[in-house]
Amino acid sequence: MHPITVNPNILKMEYAVRGPIPQRAAEMKRQGREIIPCNIGNPQALGQSPLTYYRQVLSLVEEPSKIERERKLKEIFEETPGSPLREADFISDYVLEVSEKVLTLSGTGTGAYTESKGFAFVRQAIADFINRRDGFSGKLRANPEHIFLTDGASDAAKRVLNLLIAGPEDGIMVPIPQYPLYSASITMFGGVQVDYHPDEERGWALDRAELERAYSEAARQGVNVKGIVVINPGNPTGAVLGESSIAEVIDFAAQHDLAIIADEVYQDNVYTGKFISFASVLRERPVPLFSLHSISKGFFGECGHRGGYMEVRNPPQIAGSGLNLLDLLLKQASVGLCSNTAGQILTYLMVSPPEEGSAPYTLFQKEKQRILRELYEKAQMIRAAFDQMDGVECFGETGAMYLFPRLNKLPAGTGDFEYCMALLDETGLVTVNGSGFGQKPGTHHLRIAFLPPKDLLAEVLPRWVEFHNRYVNA
Amino acid sequence: MHPITVNPNILKMEYAVRGPIPQRAAEMKRQGREIIPCNIGNPQALGQSPLTYYRQVLSLVEEPSKIERERKLKEIFEETPGSPLREADFISDYVLEVSEKVLTLSGTGTGAYTESKGFAFVRQAIADFINRRDGFSGKLRANPEHIFLTDGASDAAKRVLNLLIAGPEDGIMVPIPQYPLYSASITMFGGVQVDYHPDEERGWALDRAELERAYSEAARQGVNVKGIVVINPGNPTGAVLGESSIAEVIDFAAQHDLAIIADEVYQDNVYTGKFISFASVLRERPVPLFSLHSISKGFFGECGHRGGYMEVRNPPQIAGSGLNLLDLLLKQASVGLCSNTAGQILTYLMVSPPEEGSAPYTLFQKEKQRILRELYEKAQMIRAAFDQMDGVECFGETGAMYLFPRLNKLPAGTGDFEYCMALLDETGLVTVNGSGFGQKPGTHHLRIAFLPPKDLLAEVLPRWVEFHNRYVNA
Repeated sequence: MHPITVNPNILKMEYAVRGPIPQRAAEMKRQGREIIPCNIGNPQALGQSPLTYYRQVLSLVEEPSKIERERKLKEIFEETPGSPLREADFISDYVLEVSEKVLTLSGTGTGAYTESKGFAFVRQAIADFINRRDGFSGKLRANPEHIFLTDGASDAAKRVLNLLIAGPEDGIMVPIPQYPLYSASITMFGGVQVDYHPDEERGWALDRAELERAYSEAARQGVNVKGIVVINPGNPTGAVLGESSIAEVIDFAAQHDLAIIADEVYQDNVYTGKFISFASVLRERPVPLFSLHSISKGFFGECGHRGGYMEVRNPPQIAGSGLNLLDLLLKQASVGLCSNTAGQILTYLMVSPPEEGSAPYTLFQKEKQRILRELYEKAQMIRAAFDQMDGVECFGETGAMYLFPRLNKLPAGTGDFEYCMALLDETGLVTVNGSGFGQKPGTHHLRIAFLPPKDLLAEVLPRWVEFHNRYVNA
Repeated sequence: MHPITVNPNILKMEYAVRGPIPQRAAEMKRQGREIIPCNIGNPQALGQSPLTYYRQVLSLVEEPSKIERERKLKEIFEETPGSPLREADFISDYVLEVSEKVLTLSGTGTGAYTESKGFAFVRQAIADFINRRDGFSGKLRANPEHIFLTDGASDAAKRVLNLLIAGPEDGIMVPIPQYPLYSASITMFGGVQVDYHPDEERGWALDRAELERAYSEAARQGVNVKGIVVINPGNPTGAVLGESSIAEVIDFAAQHDLAIIADEVYQDNVYTGKFISFASVLRERPVPLFSLHSISKGFFGECGHRGGYMEVRNPPQIAGSGLNLLDLLLKQASVGLCSNTAGQILTYLMVSPPEEGSAPYTLFQKEKQRILRELYEKAQMIRAAFDQMDGVECFGETGAMYLFPRLNKLPAGTGDFEYCMALLDETGLVTVNGSGFGQKPGTHHLRIAFLPPKDLLAEVLPRWVEFHNRYVNA
């Protein structure tokens, strides 16, 4: 066949998180070199274990005959004095009952397509979770019909952007640096990426004046700004927004008639402060809000299962049609039939932790606290290494799963891409160069996920410090 | 917020399989009426059980600690004379070993993102499956690097169409009737749908002259035809293509420099003849071929798990770039991170059935044969009912999971949509009107999935016959 033309937007699109650096890493791995994949927030690839409770339930929901068998086994055990099994060898009644409840509520188990939006009982559980989290009652209560289950939050973000971008003049505001899913999707759907710059030296704080600058500069160039993406806690910066910053974004969106896409997938990854949701600050203001959450992050890290949801508040009407945005979100979901059921079940479990006092509660809490504590400790270890590196500064508090240090000193004529490649070659550490996320011209950064086990960090960090000080002073 | 503009293609797009008829059915269900959902190939929603072997392995892969526990339990059982358990209560060593093998080969289990293309071991197993199925050796062997795991085949189809449609003049040929995923996606990506008409009265046979007619008519209107979709076995028609029809499509594609998108998700749903893959007829001819397969259909029906793959042969170069189409497929996959792992594991199991003589083999074969036999018997029951209906004809052999009868007699001024709505209201049967798939102007059809249990069919079919003869003669 002759060479063909293809969608020019896919040709243009860039996605550094899985770009040349991880591709080089994969090559090194095939050659037998040790690689530490910190380019991506993928905890279970770095040894984090799944939560026992989640997997016990999921496993039984996938193989329901094991619920009855477990009951039979327990009965035999209880009737057999001197049994070599102990009670701890059995799955608790609580887990058996939750698994049965999930199967009953699903109606069809995991093997059938669900409603396009996802299982109704999962959407109800998500609504209950939002109401608990944000203290909503009355009119503010989440509506399960405004919730869509998706194959991870990436899927949700793509759906919203695909809808909002109606033509090549439509723009979406994104923070710089940003998670490249947003830049890639905006390119993909043929829209305009409108950059705004949180203030790095003030811990990546959001500033109304900067939002207005970005908006009016774009408007002057004929861009029709439709929405603003906020990632909170930040990816790649880890920055956590306070209530006043969130209120400023909402005021700004209200004034300019923008939709807000709040990427809140790291809401459980706040180590020192408190997560505040956009919905809780929005309350009754009529600004369209798409809030995204995911099973991939937090303390559960179930990335591979691709589960997530989007909650929509104040869905707007579509000009020139009798339709609401919800109708189109439903149609869009229908063409994909439904998101995967294992991801849906894990999303249910994420928003329905075991009740206090129940059999799995203690272990669940212990696993959760250990993972979160270790994440924070690992971030602190890496920050301590930065202090020993010549010209490295890391602003903002620790949130999400990433640090995004600034490299103030690099060999003349080189940038962060060359630095990350050299770091990979010398230490096996896979990071992503700051230019993959966008950064102020003239600055250089990298993103590192603080996920490797502590002993591995203790081993590699001194080698990084040594490499760094040699490399930047060469 | 004011009404907003949205992507006009999403506004235009239609998807009847989950359109007004199933929406009305959902409403009736909420009112407590009994509904028989035959609008969609969703076997487990109609009582089909998942295959024991698949779920045993999946369940253990989701909860690996249960592998060791099972071994311990077995040991206790064997050492305890008079145990109330029987050997059949335990999971076979073979299943335990397959589960361990899957975990080892995956490296990271189900909780981590996989490679963008999917687990390497699953792609290798798919390549081996294709080689076995099509008798490939040497240069014809499938290349695991040309295989992409996807969230069901719908995901794969959307990816390919999104790439191939480079601008509003680009066209894709689709059979009429067709599975509306294709029409919806072509609308979505802003391309032109170019219809070709298999010959209903010759069992939906493909005809070279008709392909040429469709192509040249489109070309005359300035459409740049890029590819041709073939669904084999057919959806919604069930028609199964013979080798000569496939060879004709390949000749046609070669002559006009087209890519072939071969939707082969129903390859196990051939009840009387034999499935012939496009790859096996293509052999060394340099025509780009995208072959899609899925865990949702066949005798397994694992729709909810959203697993599937696409194998690419002869990926073309991209004009004006040093890139190959594979590079873009990879970039596209990267932005979604990876397809869900439960779907990937089930895809592995689909292409790696238990070996002959192994412990799970007999039950697996029994379950498989029963499901396929019953599907065929149910199709025959429905066909027999058609024979009693005034002016209903159903052409072609029985394949896939659908029958697509022609309704030659309808009340004046009504069409198949009104018929299907009335059928739903009277009998609870949810079908899809032929216009949802496209049909020759002036003809009327419906699609019914032959999935309901036999006793349910035996109860509803006479009511359908009675309704039909009354309705069309009113």
